Amino acid sequence: MSGLHEECGVFGIIDNQRPLLSEDVYYGLFALQHRGQESCGMAVSRDGRIDCHKGMGLVGEVFSSEVLQLLHGHIAVGHVRYSTSGGSVYQNAQPLVTHYEKGTFAIAHNGNLTNTEALRKRLGKGGAIFQTDVDSEVLAYLIAGNRIHSESLEDAVVISMKELKGAYALLLMSKEKLIAARDRFGFKPLCIGKTENGYVFASESCALDSVGATFLRDVLPGEVVVCDADGLRSLPRTEEVTCSRCVFEYIYFARPDSVIDGISVYESRIRAGKLLARQHPVDADVVIGVPESGMDAASGYSIESGIPMVRGFVKNNYIGRTFIKPNHDSRKASVAIKLNPIRAAVFGKRVVMIDDSIVRGTTIARIVGMLKSVGALEVHVRVSAPPFLFPCYYGTDVPSGEHLIAKHMTTEQIAEHIGADTLGYLEEQSLKEMLGLDNKTYCDACFSGNYKDGTADGLDNDSCC
Amino acid sequence: MSGLHEECGVFGIIDNQRPLLSEDVYYGLFALQHRGQESCGMAVSRDGRIDCHKGMGLVGEVFSSEVLQLLHGHIAVGHVRYSTSGGSVYQNAQPLVTHYEKGTFAIAHNGNLTNTEALRKRLGKGGAIFQTDVDSEVLAYLIAGNRIHSESLEDAVVISMKELKGAYALLLMSKEKLIAARDRFGFKPLCIGKTENGYVFASESCALDSVGATFLRDVLPGEVVVCDADGLRSLPRTEEVTCSRCVFEYIYFARPDSVIDGISVYESRIRAGKLLARQHPVDADVVIGVPESGMDAASGYSIESGIPMVRGFVKNNYIGRTFIKPNHDSRKASVAIKLNPIRAAVFGKRVVMIDDSIVRGTTIARIVGMLKSVGALEVHVRVSAPPFLFPCYYGTDVPSGEHLIAKHMTTEQIAEHIGADTLGYLEEQSLKEMLGLDNKTYCDACFSGNYKDGTADGLDNDSCC
Amino acid sequence: MSGLHEECGVFGIIDNQRPLLSEDVYYGLFALQHRGQESCGMAVSRDGRIDCHKGMGLVGEVFSSEVLQLLHGHIAVGHVRYSTSGGSVYQNAQPLVTHYEKGTFAIAHNGNLTNTEALRKRLGKGGAIFQTDVDSEVLAYLIAGNRIHSESLEDAVVISMKELKGAYALLLMSKEKLIAARDRFGFKPLCIGKTENGYVFASESCALDSVGATFLRDVLPGEVVVCDADGLRSLPRTEEVTCSRCVFEYIYFARPDSVIDGISVYESRIRAGKLLARQHPVDADVVIGVPESGMDAASGYSIESGIPMVRGFVKNNYIGRTFIKPNHDSRKASVAIKLNPIRAAVFGKRVVMIDDSIVRGTTIARIVGMLKSVGALEVHVRVSAPPFLFPCYYGTDVPSGEHLIAKHMTTEQIAEHIGADTLGYLEEQSLKEMLGLDNKTYCDACFSGNYKDGTADGLDNDSCC
Amino acid sequence: MSGLHEECGVFGIIDNQRPLLSEDVYYGLFALQHRGQESCGMAVSRDGRIDCHKGMGLVGEVFSSEVLQLLHGHIAVGHVRYSTSGGSVYQNAQPLVTHYEKGTFAIAHNGNLTNTEALRKRLGKGGAIFQTDVDSEVLAYLIAGNRIHSESLEDAVVISMKELKGAYALLLMSKEKLIAARDRFGFKPLCIGKTENGYVFASESCALDSVGATFLRDVLPGEVVVCDADGLRSLPRTEEVTCSRCVFEYIYFARPDSVIDGISVYESRIRAGKLLARQHPVDADVVIGVPESGMDAASGYSIESGIPMVRGFVKNNYIGRTFIKPNHDSRKASVAIKLNPIRAAVFGKRVVMIDDSIVRGTTIARIVGMLKSVGALEVHVRVSAPPFLFPCYYGTDVPSGEHLIAKHMTTEQIAEHIGADTLGYLEEQSLKEMLGLDNKTYCDACFSGNYKDGTADGLDNDSCC
Repeated sequence: MSGLHEECGVFGIIDNQRPLLSEDVYYGLFALQHRGQESCGMAVSRDGRIDCHKGMGLVGEVFSSEVLQLLHGHIAVGHVRYSTSGGSVYQNAQPLVTHYEKGTFAIAHNGNLTNTEALRKRLGKGGAIFQTDVDSEVLAYLIAGNRIHSESLEDAVVISMKELKGAYALLLMSKEKLIAARDRFGFKPLCIGKTENGYVFASESCALDSVGATFLRDVLPGEVVVCDADGLRSLPRTEEVTCSRCVFEYIYFARPDSVIDGISVYESRIRAGKLLARQHPVDADVVIGVPESGMDAASGYSIESGIPMVRGFVKNNYIGRTFIKPNHDSRKASVAIKLNPIRAAVFGKRVVMIDDSIVRGTTIARIVGMLKSVGALEVHVRVSAPPFLFPCYYGTDVPSGEHLIAKHMTTEQIAEHIGADTLGYLEEQSLKEMLGLDNKTYCDACFSGNYKDGTADGLDNDSCC
Repeated sequence: MSGLHEECGVFGIIDNQRPLLSEDVYYGLFALQHRGQESCGMAVSRDGRIDCHKGMGLVGEVFSSEVLQLLHGHIAVGHVRYSTSGGSVYQNAQPLVTHYEKGTFAIAHNGNLTNTEALRKRLGKGGAIFQTDVDSEVLAYLIAGNRIHSESLEDAVVISMKELKGAYALLLMSKEKLIAARDRFGFKPLCIGKTENGYVFASESCALDSVGATFLRDVLPGEVVVCDADGLRSLPRTEEVTCSRCVFEYIYFARPDSVIDGISVYESRIRAGKLLARQHPVDADVVIGVPESGMDAASGYSIESGIPMVRGFVKNNYIGRTFIKPNHDSRKASVAIKLNPIRAAVFGKRVVMIDDSIVRGTTIARIVGMLKSVGALEVHVRVSAPPFLFPCYYGTDVPSGEHLIAKHMTTEQIAEHIGADTLGYLEEQSLKEMLGLDNKTYCDACFSGNYKDGTADGLDNDSCC
Repeated sequence: MSGLHEECGVFGIIDNQRPLLSEDVYYGLFALQHRGQESCGMAVSRDGRIDCHKGMGLVGEVFSSEVLQLLHGHIAVGHVRYSTSGGSVYQNAQPLVTHYEKGTFAIAHNGNLTNTEALRKRLGKGGAIFQTDVDSEVLAYLIAGNRIHSESLEDAVVISMKELKGAYALLLMSKEKLIAARDRFGFKPLCIGKTENGYVFASESCALDSVGATFLRDVLPGEVVVCDADGLRSLPRTEEVTCSRCVFEYIYFARPDSVIDGISVYESRIRAGKLLARQHPVDADVVIGVPESGMDAASGYSIESGIPMVRGFVKNNYIGRTFIKPNHDSRKASVAIKLNPIRAAVFGKRVVMIDDSIVRGTTIARIVGMLKSVGALEVHVRVSAPPFLFPCYYGTDVPSGEHLIAKHMTTEQIAEHIGADTLGYLEEQSLKEMLGLDNKTYCDACFSGNYKDGTADGLDNDSCC
Repeated sequence: MSGLHEECGVFGIIDNQRPLLSEDVYYGLFALQHRGQESCGMAVSRDGRIDCHKGMGLVGEVFSSEVLQLLHGHIAVGHVRYSTSGGSVYQNAQPLVTHYEKGTFAIAHNGNLTNTEALRKRLGKGGAIFQTDVDSEVLAYLIAGNRIHSESLEDAVVISMKELKGAYALLLMSKEKLIAARDRFGFKPLCIGKTENGYVFASESCALDSVGATFLRDVLPGEVVVCDADGLRSLPRTEEVTCSRCVFEYIYFARPDSVIDGISVYESRIRAGKLLARQHPVDADVVIGVPESGMDAASGYSIESGIPMVRGFVKNNYIGRTFIKPNHDSRKASVAIKLNPIRAAVFGKRVVMIDDSIVRGTTIARIVGMLKSVGALEVHVRVSAPPFLFPCYYGTDVPSGEHLIAKHMTTEQIAEHIGADTLGYLEEQSLKEMLGLDNKTYCDACFSGNYKDGTADGLDNDSCC
């Protein structure tokens, strides 16, 4: 139920035996739809030209059968983009198709550069013009510029990566090649799958499943992988890299059926629940999860504690893009329209309620209130993440400190504020155990303030994805 | 995961203090959206006229803010209609607004008359013309005809009910009144709620919650309730009535947060799961439910058996009206696009999988296959309903016998056919216990062939809702 | 430029050799689009069923290729409906498909009954219910009711016609037959065409041209024509009929390439212009017509007077349904956006300006003002119709007397009011000559108050078409 | 009826007293809609930011009231784009908003550069990337690049113009300024209007009329005009310029109510008709024009010859974007659906038919055939332009020589090919007289092959507008 959004999803496919990959991209993007609902698009390469179709809305809204039929090609990349109010415009949709001195390429990426402004300024002094707000255009400029003096497009990517700071999982399609790259910290996920005659790249492994591809491996932090008619090859990594995968992917963003960098998202959430049960035990009658992201941690809590898990809410999934939110003060809040408590499940019960995070505290207060209003005797909130305290520079849209409830209140104060009888967060030092790791090869800067790439402040966090 | 559809949902509201009830109908219908996604509509009464807006699609698609603003009135009725291929046309959308000798009324109903053809024939001989395929038009004719020689509209409803056979939960709005009626067997649900200055009627109590109304009581089988400026009153019931509520509402149709005729849908599903655990125990590692309707029975099974319940599938809810279904033979079936198994939850595990029903067996075979394909060692299917053997004449679209797998195979054969290691159905005689009843005051004709109203065969089952 | 609207257009086709007539109806309705832009629809008959597609908007908007492909059938009827603010709703779109005791038929009609209310009341007492505001539903009831005791559908039409008063040109399609009927005064036009293997009916002959049909003859006033597998036959007319064709069809409504009841619309307009030149000669430099309906009378004036005709205005035809009309007071009026004077054509010139009618005088005043503002020295307005003085009960939406400028002002006063140097109307007694007729076999009630069918007042004029 | 398309239209406005100019741009673009129906857009400048809305389709389709309300600003530019099959994509819509080192600007232009490829190559070597196919992006790069080392944006425009070859009428809007520029040959039209508190620029003067602006003057060939808070000023022209206005604007493209470079489009067409009457007289009964562009030349022919002018065709203007063209071989061609001859006007007559041009000859052959099919005794075709023989490099989409009928046939052969009794073209040397000029200050390269700027061949003619 986290109010946070960030994230985009990328999907790429190459198959020299098949000329029509658009349907695969369609289902791949559909499987990644949870990573972005604002806009989507795909570009296909065929006979030396690149065609592209983009639009505002869900994959199922933007692409018709007719459009898919027209998108022929043996290489294709797609993108889903998250939704914020500000830059929600067609112009910012991806992939971005670029014509330049050496030809044409399409770019799709997930993540947030931390030196966008500096790069934009440098490019601008050289005469660059920008038509969008997004990092992709900066990436396109850098790569196109470096390509002029490089042997190959992949070399240009390698050179460009030395100039880039921050987070990116990148797919680049030229007329002949599909190139994948991941920043040297591996903030954003990107994996490789194998089909009968080709390869697939996707932000999450669940998208491989959706097109019947077999999981091969993750793209490594700092790695550049090239696919063309000769197959798949990895470029030598010249830099020391430290894995710093985003822990919040496991807590909230990713789908539970995905495995990211060797760790099952589902299992990490089950472990989070078990850890919570050990760290914050309570005598209760039922465990419930806040749909959808709290469900698996609730299972873990239930298994560890022996308290039965039941469904506490019905979530109404018929909300489409044009759904009208209630705007009368007298009306129950928007969350109540989408989420209704099941009285029979909680009436007269002591409830453990699991959610994935608390940002401002407004939403969770309403949800706790709902449970009490239908007769829950006690509501013990358990959060499968530590308190949010610091901004994320890599793409997650964490509100500024003044809006983060944990910056201003103690856990006891928050519990009181949200109407919970008790409140327990997952301990920050447990994240390693949650992920099943021996070393701290992940980024938890939003909880710890520990930015592995040295980023501290003064960054523009606007143009993401 | 039942492939069955049926059902419509109705919602009505009267409030003499408020002129703009369209937003309430909007949220009420949204809460009933699971009962019908094909079309929806609402009619409002004000200053002696009735305005109506209908359309194909979801509530969130058919009604814009502008339209809601235009629908003024102190009485309003709304309807959501289920989706089948045949009669999926605008013309069949409800409410139906009718002008007749004595004025104007709007009608919205759920259910299937069993003597439609006879009534249509009789009316036709009198010169009636029909513009739709739906029972509502027959109802409108009957009531309008009977009104001519009656004291009041409610009297016309009472007289008409004597001529009606089959199932109906009916809302009728004239310029001054809101009238609710339920067939004498009470096949279809209909309840009454109270707002600050008025009353609400809805197919399920979850819709009362969505507008902040308090549950008052159910409309009784055979009862006619009238609301107008004088408040709410019930007409004397002249006939012996036998309650025969539809058991499949509890098993599948209704939302778990609804309470129908005094029985919590959620609790009946929990009890179904517990009964299944006692009737068909098995040694296993995890219990999973097929989303969404198998989830609560899975909880019950888990509680009774002590086997932990986990989430076995991710369901992709971003499917809108325009989503393109896979059509290549080589592609994984449609169900795989919407539902992906969580390997980490089932790999190497012995799984108990709970679903609400088996109709043709095709879908469940695919789902069992999915679990096996990601490494489930055993899959034990438990069905929270008895086998389907007979047609429903009251509105549920059960396929004809030749397509019902249980008509042709033993349970063991079905288990083998769907790839399950074992299979167990809820025993027919347990339905009473599932509902927590002392007497058989419910209809289970689709399982037992026992039609309480004497209906046997020869009926047209086409024009429903 | 008449602000009047009325009118609908009907089109029907039967061809036993061709199963897909929807494209013919499409182009036929497109040719009749000037008769109605609010909504349109078509119904097709095949294998004992009737399918129908209707919608709000232009033919080119309502029908897609996909829809046309689905509308199979060897008989088809279509309809275009005019646009007014009041009843502009989907429910009123035609054709109206009706199921009744003896089967199914579709009805499409043009015209206004004058005894609708009486018929509705009588039918209502018999239990009839009405779902729309349009006469078509009354027609359907009457015909269906009369069919029960008739030998055939055409007999039912004949019987029904005895009960109908007012104006109608009617197409009726059953599963086997296409029936055309015209009221006994022949107020509304309806003609018959011949294709290679079948027949076509249309409101105007221009629609025959659009599908490559040959004009056969007009349906006679009071005639009923039946087409089926046996070909075309006319039923004996039992009543004395007097032709009373609407003169305003020739002046304004119809397309100039149509021939109605043996009279070319184009030629009647040329004659009107010539008559005007004789009745109201003036010394001038150029003749211009107000587009589109004033153009041909302007030609006639030019030919008769020898004054050259030039184009005085550019009309902007890119106005679609969603065009935004100017709403600032300070802005030039709506007419100026659509119509711009050509300064070079009128500067320093004495202009004769021909328009088809003056209703309120507002629009023509703006147009005269435009010409003066770009330097016309004199503007002599000539109107190719007599002054509007009386209401039309047969379908034309003439404003009530208080809004008719000619009711309150002399011709000189009107000239001054609209800023014209002189003003001349076509003389009422010239209408016969304009039409090239020997007898007064036309209706000019809106000018003369002479209602041939005895209609005088007390009529509801609301539900037309 | 020319099948040629080219052309875009531009409109710009500045008014420091009014913050909401979007409605003016809306009506201005609507008046220019004949210059482009594929896509349109507008950008507004306010408080240091530039907002832009673009879309595929007509002005009335792309802009809603809501969108216009959101487009605040005291400077605004808009654009309409022509329709071809190839580059008909959103990405190519204008205005193009560009962010660069020195800020932001929006660009809208009409015309075709002849050195696009060379410029693109040069910019590409410097690292430029291109996201569209249109010249505007090249213009934006050049101007942005030159701005870095210039004093002002207008200086950058002046410098850039030295590098540009070919045709352009350009509007550039920064946060503070509106700049207009026209290539040194003045191929494309651009004029200046005055409103109460500001200035307007438009491709044609008819757009000034539509917003109530007064015509001030044309932008001169090679001139750069700047408007800002200080008013309007012209930059000194450093180069000798030769006017070379496009003669085909007068013959076909422009609206007759426009005055371009001091010449009335209407009058030039009247003169063309008179010249034709003198050069190719014929004994005939009526003169008709092919709508719309042949109408005024027909008037001229009629005036000069004394043969009366009548309307020969009805043009159906209800064709919208989604209109379905006939695709059956057996069906009458598309032109017949849109254009129907008026039999009464031509039957038994000797007809002079005026059209503006003949390109391939296919369309005119159908039109001549129509007239004959409804009984025209003779059809004498007169064309108000010389034969097309050469390509246009400045924006008009003339087909390649092999498709130009005049390249392969004599006038007599063409007459026979199109079914005309006689055929006469306007003589090439009469163009000067048609325009009322003393010197050849116009471009007639498509007729004469005389390219004033030295352009000959080897040019890419693809990326226009």
